[in-house]
Amino acid sequence: MVKVNENYLKLPGSYLFQEIGRRTRAFQDQAPMPIIRLGIGDVTRPLAPVVVEAMVKASQEMGHKETFRGYCEETCTAYDWLRYAIQADYKRQGVEIADDEIFVSDGAKSDCGMIGDIFSADNVVAVCDPVYPVYVDTNAMDGRAGEYDGQRWTNLVYLPCTAENGFVPELPEGRVPDLIYICSPNNPTGAAATKDQLKVWVDFANQHGSIILFDSAYEAFITEENVPHSIFEVEGARTCAIEFRSFSKTAGFTGNRCAYTVIPKELERGGASLHALWNRRRASKFNGVPYVIQRAAEASLTDEGRAQTAQAIAYYRRNAEVIRDGLSAAGLAVYGGVNAPYIWARGPEGMGSWDLFDLLLKKACVVTTPGAGFGPSGEGYIRLTAFGDADATREAVERIKAVL
Amino acid sequence: MVKVNENYLKLPGSYLFQEIGRRTRAFQDQAPMPIIRLGIGDVTRPLAPVVVEAMVKASQEMGHKETFRGYCEETCTAYDWLRYAIQADYKRQGVEIADDEIFVSDGAKSDCGMIGDIFSADNVVAVCDPVYPVYVDTNAMDGRAGEYDGQRWTNLVYLPCTAENGFVPELPEGRVPDLIYICSPNNPTGAAATKDQLKVWVDFANQHGSIILFDSAYEAFITEENVPHSIFEVEGARTCAIEFRSFSKTAGFTGNRCAYTVIPKELERGGASLHALWNRRRASKFNGVPYVIQRAAEASLTDEGRAQTAQAIAYYRRNAEVIRDGLSAAGLAVYGGVNAPYIWARGPEGMGSWDLFDLLLKKACVVTTPGAGFGPSGEGYIRLTAFGDADATREAVERIKAVL
Repeated sequence: MVKVNENYLKLPGSYLFQEIGRRTRAFQDQAPMPIIRLGIGDVTRPLAPVVVEAMVKASQEMGHKETFRGYCEETCTAYDWLRYAIQADYKRQGVEIADDEIFVSDGAKSDCGMIGDIFSADNVVAVCDPVYPVYVDTNAMDGRAGEYDGQRWTNLVYLPCTAENGFVPELPEGRVPDLIYICSPNNPTGAAATKDQLKVWVDFANQHGSIILFDSAYEAFITEENVPHSIFEVEGARTCAIEFRSFSKTAGFTGNRCAYTVIPKELERGGASLHALWNRRRASKFNGVPYVIQRAAEASLTDEGRAQTAQAIAYYRRNAEVIRDGLSAAGLAVYGGVNAPYIWARGPEGMGSWDLFDLLLKKACVVTTPGAGFGPSGEGYIRLTAFGDADATREAVERIKAVL
Repeated sequence: MVKVNENYLKLPGSYLFQEIGRRTRAFQDQAPMPIIRLGIGDVTRPLAPVVVEAMVKASQEMGHKETFRGYCEETCTAYDWLRYAIQADYKRQGVEIADDEIFVSDGAKSDCGMIGDIFSADNVVAVCDPVYPVYVDTNAMDGRAGEYDGQRWTNLVYLPCTAENGFVPELPEGRVPDLIYICSPNNPTGAAATKDQLKVWVDFANQHGSIILFDSAYEAFITEENVPHSIFEVEGARTCAIEFRSFSKTAGFTGNRCAYTVIPKELERGGASLHALWNRRRASKFNGVPYVIQRAAEASLTDEGRAQTAQAIAYYRRNAEVIRDGLSAAGLAVYGGVNAPYIWARGPEGMGSWDLFDLLLKKACVVTTPGAGFGPSGEGYIRLTAFGDADATREAVERIKAVL
């Protein structure tokens, strides 16, 4: 008789967004005005013209025998020209990496979720609290999280991120984590770690043989100088870090699906090269990103592509400003939104995340995301995103101001 | 200190295609005529015009705010119209499945390789011998294969597929397998199981609570009436089988990346729905296939799309016939190629796979795949594929005939 992976049975389910959907639908019919959604983390601006052109051209190439492309069997399952374009993008940020340290994939979520495959089940995992749920759930699936007690998993090391520490995690006391997930700029809090703050973690990881799994999917939103775009800007990171990046939020690729993961070739543990293990995994479980999408990604990294995608980023940044200013004016303590597309706002004293969610849904017809859904330290907060339409965002903020 | 997944360290590496590449390169400079490659399983015909049109249109839609698509958040992470098109395709083959039993993905290899995630590490796994290496390697990664002794993994149940049994596996004596991989039409042997032969396995699986992981990536090549295109044509399969299908060989999508996996909703083990477990896995580790690729896949299933892709299939079938006839005329025992794009040929008495490979490389300048690379029972055989250019295929066969 087949036995299923029992770790899956311990998962509490994806209650957060289901519950948001349920409450929103239940209210929809009695809503006195159109509902505006600032909860979801999805982009809304169209792809840049140069990206669309590249996709059209690549699609047409696939229709001719001479220019048709089958399996991508090049290094790291990605075409040279895309790896070189990503390498050049790093170089512009002052980071030197080899092109064959770049693994192109269909999403940062996929890679963040699957990287656990190359690690043993008995590593100690640290996550921030609040946290992007994928880090937690995928480690639970792999058997590294222990049991779920209704709020926390028994085997995870939680790193509280609160207003007191500026939402940047401090080194843990007690158990030393082997795998450390850091997302900066952060989802959900919008906080971004400085170079000095990241150096503390790099030194810790190098000292203990830990690995930092660094998610920089939102690096395009960084505006402040002392915030690194890449963990590899920090000295010592090449011997302790893997970096996950995505075209999703940088170039509006949430419907296009392209991301990449960088594993330095000198990164070893127990004599095994993590680069070689990940390469081996992909050889058996992945065949690369579609040719047309690789061309799209390449186009987004040309001078023209970067200029065009920068306009979308600027558009979202203005939304972030509108939300920050508006919620501050409404008397909320507001964080994030400066180096990130997420705004993290603390509700009125004593009001829980879900109460605030309900209030804003019912009185302002605005959907937010309750911070408690991201972990216990998110209680009392809500997350808003800057990815909406500019007019709708302004209107939503005015409504919230009127309610609070 | 981080511990790596030690199962990866047991893998012998992807020696087969590396070794083929090495020998081919070493010979290349001294080759007296252009080398023809009939070893690789990749398509060469361009995408159908209607598919290219759909990709161009979808690419342009992504450039306008009104028609831009972000995350695909529909059922099973695939658009309704694609799930319905796939469902209709099954219906044409006489198989009724629900649209939300279809999980669209980036590749059958990905899904075959990752489906193990939802099963416990202590299931007994059966594979055919010879076998598509992905089934073996991914189970080794998950810790289900035991140790590699240079030819076989100690914990796997091998099902010999030989000329004597028509390359269709017989029920094992001894250990009862929990997970049973069946690929029909088969890679590498090109054999296809009849409905009666599959019924034996379905009954066995239902009797023992086993699951059949049925890979029908090559179903479009079936020409004989009593060979099922889907395991779900066999009575009882819905309570014991998961099916993997792909647009790769059906519509030339090896560079486009689209496939799907069907899990019946009534498929349960230990009280857990496998459909629910796979859905849960995908929620945390996948964000769906690009919009433009979903549109491409949909177009390939329209009447026009099916008529156009059928031309490519017919083209490859003619190649298969040329190879079959030519190798038979050369005195080899030839199998497959009737319901599959693969031809499995037995070399002269006493000649090993690699010896035959070397002979054909050096004397005929034709690259084949040594059967021994697919498992011990493949010794003495070579695999040839029908996916090449028609003229080159004819020429290669003439050269082989001249040598043997």
